[in-house]
Amino acid sequence: MRTVFYISDGTGITSETLGRSLLTQFDTTNFQEVRIPFLDSAEKAAAARLQIDAATQTDGGRALVFNTVVDPKVSSVLAASEGLVIDLFGQFLPVLESELQSKSVQAVGKAHGIGNKKSYDARISATNYALSHDDGVSTNYQDSDVILVGVSRSGKTPTCLYLALHYGVRAANFPLTEDELNGGSAPQALMRYRHKLFGLTITPSRLHSIREKRRPGSRYASSRRCSQEVAEAEMLFKSRRIPFADTTDSSIEEIASRILVALDLEKHFF
Amino acid sequence: MRTVFYISDGTGITSETLGRSLLTQFDTTNFQEVRIPFLDSAEKAAAARLQIDAATQTDGGRALVFNTVVDPKVSSVLAASEGLVIDLFGQFLPVLESELQSKSVQAVGKAHGIGNKKSYDARISATNYALSHDDGVSTNYQDSDVILVGVSRSGKTPTCLYLALHYGVRAANFPLTEDELNGGSAPQALMRYRHKLFGLTITPSRLHSIREKRRPGSRYASSRRCSQEVAEAEMLFKSRRIPFADTTDSSIEEIASRILVALDLEKHFF
Repeated sequence: MRTVFYISDGTGITSETLGRSLLTQFDTTNFQEVRIPFLDSAEKAAAARLQIDAATQTDGGRALVFNTVVDPKVSSVLAASEGLVIDLFGQFLPVLESELQSKSVQAVGKAHGIGNKKSYDARISATNYALSHDDGVSTNYQDSDVILVGVSRSGKTPTCLYLALHYGVRAANFPLTEDELNGGSAPQALMRYRHKLFGLTITPSRLHSIREKRRPGSRYASSRRCSQEVAEAEMLFKSRRIPFADTTDSSIEEIASRILVALDLEKHFF
Repeated sequence: MRTVFYISDGTGITSETLGRSLLTQFDTTNFQEVRIPFLDSAEKAAAARLQIDAATQTDGGRALVFNTVVDPKVSSVLAASEGLVIDLFGQFLPVLESELQSKSVQAVGKAHGIGNKKSYDARISATNYALSHDDGVSTNYQDSDVILVGVSRSGKTPTCLYLALHYGVRAANFPLTEDELNGGSAPQALMRYRHKLFGLTITPSRLHSIREKRRPGSRYASSRRCSQEVAEAEMLFKSRRIPFADTTDSSIEEIASRILVALDLEKHFF
């Protein structure tokens, strides 16, 4: 067992993202995670150091410390611990400073702070948009960046929320119900915005198991109906040339990333 | 102007997080961002290399390349470009391999793939929970991890969705309306779960400007009413000893991080 510390002067998201990306490359999952966000003073660092040293003693192996504290004075307290300290800023800032011929500002908590107010407000506004355009509630799609279509429980809502919260993408979604699918055609309201459509599909067996949890034993959850809906939805995507992706073995993050690429929806941070 | 490439064999989220965390430490924002996710072959890398070299020529300065491709063969194609390549895995995996005395698996797209199925399903299920327990719709809070309380438009919904989507935290929220605040007491339904409560507040002027956008000129949006509601909500938080945070100058990520710490809601990844 190893204890893993994610230490940051801000939210700890960068530190956690960095650490997990590296650790998922190892077969073991015998890690005990500790997050220490908002560590912004030498005193707090000294307290963290005690924790790191204690964990190292208890585990009988050096604690792994992913450190995204900007202030070198605070950071040096951690570096003096018994843990293996992986220091993002210490490692890479000097290279960038020399390349950009500019000193870094060493400001605390920048990465996931409110940052660019305009792009931040766009994320909040997109989240409200996703909620008011969820599940076909409103079909006024003029302002949407993307409209996800798919059968019930194919993953439309979480994907829309993720696109909105992270990228400020105005994502609506529209459920393909039995009625629509029987007709073999998407509603006119949708086809006006064909260039904004993206389909989600899922294997019938996975859909069956998700629906069973919601409405056990219902016709809605039956294997037969799941197979039929999925087949018809995929047929619709192909006949209308709507790009689509399978959510069965893909995470929300992966689907969102594919949608950004497919619809060329790059929103920029700087 | 510098072109910045975020290159990954998966979603590109780690690469983007890494790059932006570093670049926010510089005063300039004169960066043009290009994301290249799902880069998983030497051919795709060769195409990216051409883009990197072209940008370097056009900009008159080396492109900045944040690279989280795992396969060293693919990665080496990028390393041979004219850009300044910051290579996360190349830099840190060897240190971890030697510390853990174990070879890394070099598996593609692990960081934001579906990963641990159980914790992934928990995130989706928490998102559904957040939606069905938004804005006081359902007050059955037995299964909730946290219940956010605050006046209308103080940031409860996006924070709940973020906590759910990212951390698999079952986050509900309950709006403090004028009626509740006038009584000076929170509803009984809430106080049963006092240990799960977390308050959100906001400055009256910011609240006024948010509400004005929704219902211009309304009593709901008036400065007077905003001031009154905020004062009463904060009084309630203090008298009932409900921990709270101000969302005015904090991002969703920062508020979420504070909530995880305050309520000791660490969910673990491994």
